[in-house]
Amino acid sequence: MKAVGIVVEYNPFHNGHLYHVNESKKITNADVVVAVMSGNFLQRGEPALVSKWHRTKMALYNGVDIVIELPYVYSTANAPIFAEGAIFLLDAMKCDVFAFGSEQGNIEPFLNTANLIEENFDEYNRLIKQFVSTGISYPKSLYLAYEQLQRMKNQPCIDLSQPNNILGYHYIAAAKKFNVSIQPATIQRVSAGYHDSINEKSNIASATGIRKAIFEHKNLEEIRSYVPETTFSELHKWQQQFSTFVHWETFWPLLKYGLLRNSPEQLTAFADVSEGIENALIKHAKQANSFSEFMSLIKSKRYTWTRLQRMLTHIFTGITKEELHQFQHPTYIRLLGMTSKGQAYLSERKKDFPLPLISRVAQVKDPMLAIDIRASEIYGLGLELYSKNKIDGDYKTPPIRM
Amino acid sequence: MKAVGIVVEYNPFHNGHLYHVNESKKITNADVVVAVMSGNFLQRGEPALVSKWHRTKMALYNGVDIVIELPYVYSTANAPIFAEGAIFLLDAMKCDVFAFGSEQGNIEPFLNTANLIEENFDEYNRLIKQFVSTGISYPKSLYLAYEQLQRMKNQPCIDLSQPNNILGYHYIAAAKKFNVSIQPATIQRVSAGYHDSINEKSNIASATGIRKAIFEHKNLEEIRSYVPETTFSELHKWQQQFSTFVHWETFWPLLKYGLLRNSPEQLTAFADVSEGIENALIKHAKQANSFSEFMSLIKSKRYTWTRLQRMLTHIFTGITKEELHQFQHPTYIRLLGMTSKGQAYLSERKKDFPLPLISRVAQVKDPMLAIDIRASEIYGLGLELYSKNKIDGDYKTPPIRM
Repeated sequence: MKAVGIVVEYNPFHNGHLYHVNESKKITNADVVVAVMSGNFLQRGEPALVSKWHRTKMALYNGVDIVIELPYVYSTANAPIFAEGAIFLLDAMKCDVFAFGSEQGNIEPFLNTANLIEENFDEYNRLIKQFVSTGISYPKSLYLAYEQLQRMKNQPCIDLSQPNNILGYHYIAAAKKFNVSIQPATIQRVSAGYHDSINEKSNIASATGIRKAIFEHKNLEEIRSYVPETTFSELHKWQQQFSTFVHWETFWPLLKYGLLRNSPEQLTAFADVSEGIENALIKHAKQANSFSEFMSLIKSKRYTWTRLQRMLTHIFTGITKEELHQFQHPTYIRLLGMTSKGQAYLSERKKDFPLPLISRVAQVKDPMLAIDIRASEIYGLGLELYSKNKIDGDYKTPPIRM
Repeated sequence: MKAVGIVVEYNPFHNGHLYHVNESKKITNADVVVAVMSGNFLQRGEPALVSKWHRTKMALYNGVDIVIELPYVYSTANAPIFAEGAIFLLDAMKCDVFAFGSEQGNIEPFLNTANLIEENFDEYNRLIKQFVSTGISYPKSLYLAYEQLQRMKNQPCIDLSQPNNILGYHYIAAAKKFNVSIQPATIQRVSAGYHDSINEKSNIASATGIRKAIFEHKNLEEIRSYVPETTFSELHKWQQQFSTFVHWETFWPLLKYGLLRNSPEQLTAFADVSEGIENALIKHAKQANSFSEFMSLIKSKRYTWTRLQRMLTHIFTGITKEELHQFQHPTYIRLLGMTSKGQAYLSERKKDFPLPLISRVAQVKDPMLAIDIRASEIYGLGLELYSKNKIDGDYKTPPIRM
């Protein structure tokens, strides 16, 4: 069986994701789709709308055959680290190829870019430093350095100002770093006004737009035409059970406690917390009555929204720098769910997996997994404050079978 | 003006306390009563029923002229440390004498005991170690060592199996340690069946009994005859405002989060957390749905109830061993409230105070005070989860004047 791997958050699964799953399978001629999916905390430093178990179901209903968890250590990290975790795991799953959506849509320019940066790594870093030293932001400096590098090469390269191209580049760079056998492929990303025929057929909206509509209108019908019916019904069930969807506002009372429980010095021990921000975090936590009020107080030019949210994610889950940065690569494959075809694939290939395949966490002692479990417990506890119904802890939940 | 100092928790202020205030003043012939009172977290490792501000009012209504705060570092500590903080502060307040209730009732045997232990300190410790090594508990070993020591001396000593005698002994020991000029005095403790005439007149019940009645019957009228009318009215106002009185159950959701937010290793960094208990704390926090359920799971012969509650207090407020044990003695006098007579005393004597007298905390940078403020904020936040009404933070609250 040929397997294609994809890297997903599914927050929530929508029609654009469905297109991505189907195209990934088609262009790679794969029999099986393996998704490495972030758990309850995501790359922009946010808790997921609904738990990883509900999002796993959405995936399995819509063409994904196996869902494994991208550990917290990677799911909440910046693009290079996020990509390393994802690609390492898809390779460990013995996928033949991984497919990602990009603005570019062709794989050659990605490979050219990766080679260009690899071959000129020192010069690239020197240029970045030079731009940063003139007061230009780090992301902008990266881009300017890359532009300068590009002039040295005649082959077509990708446009690194596009967010999905950036992520795609990091997948390729991660594949190079670990020298994996999995091969890359890319799919032109579907976005409004770009693939008109698809838009007309299937109603594409971004996950961000869908979440915004859910929280603003508090009426699921608003988003019904942008998601598969199975997503709609999973979201509906969640709403019945827990009364609220999860966003930072849901966790604000606990996060506030998490902020006030530390001395300023102790706050800087948490992952991604930059020195110099600790006093402001505590001061504004005392003043704010909601997460949005807190963010408006704390936001400054110095920190991007995502960077602040990542700090807050680690403060919330209590993950320290020391804990987060102790790993070289993923140490296990955590199975969240599978279809019968996925199960057949596992039976055929799992003997070749270089990492342990974990279905039940209770018996496993692994420091990376302990962080996932802690983050899950805290996500569940935050939800409990709003709802009489509880999420089953990671200890109790077996992989979903469909 | 002659001042008598007393050491109090007032959780809540009751008729026995009123007797203690009046007797302290009478037997010492004092003009002014200065109380050093624990803040929002108390010596048995519990949050106070109502905030320190409400308890300050109860004191000022009933004969106390000045209330200062016993810092968290001391108010949550074992008897020796608790006593050191209290006596150091009363001496810093230039009180002439401090008066404590005891089963003994005469001061001479206290002085004899303190001298006996001081003069035979090495032998005392050798005996304690010897008893502990045979498997006897530490408190019991202390007592047995003391009994053996006592046989060496002919003068009358106190009975160190009585809780208030123990605390009294530590006050005397603290006074010796700091070589203070404040003089000790003791009052026979009032308890049911002991001072019958007083019992008939004023209805004495312990603060523990009063709290139990409040939580079991949820009807304040039950305790009305055991407290001054002003206490009753303060409790009544609190209940109107916050709907709940504070005990550990109130804070359970936050405490649970505080427990789950750490790795086992990180938990051992908090003050009073003994190595070996960390995994059990996390495991049982996941299982328990209330504080009492948690305590019944965690309780073992190895740890006393008080010791467990002290650990949980520090885990709750996030105070580490390093933070708690950095101090040699109190570093400020925090004024919580005063009567006009108290104010006159301060005007007369404050120029001689060896520590800064703090009325407003906003401008003060002091590591011991920072801990008090943090503990207060967290107490207030825990209450907020239950009530729409907020307690004003320490930053906003000026001393109470009456």
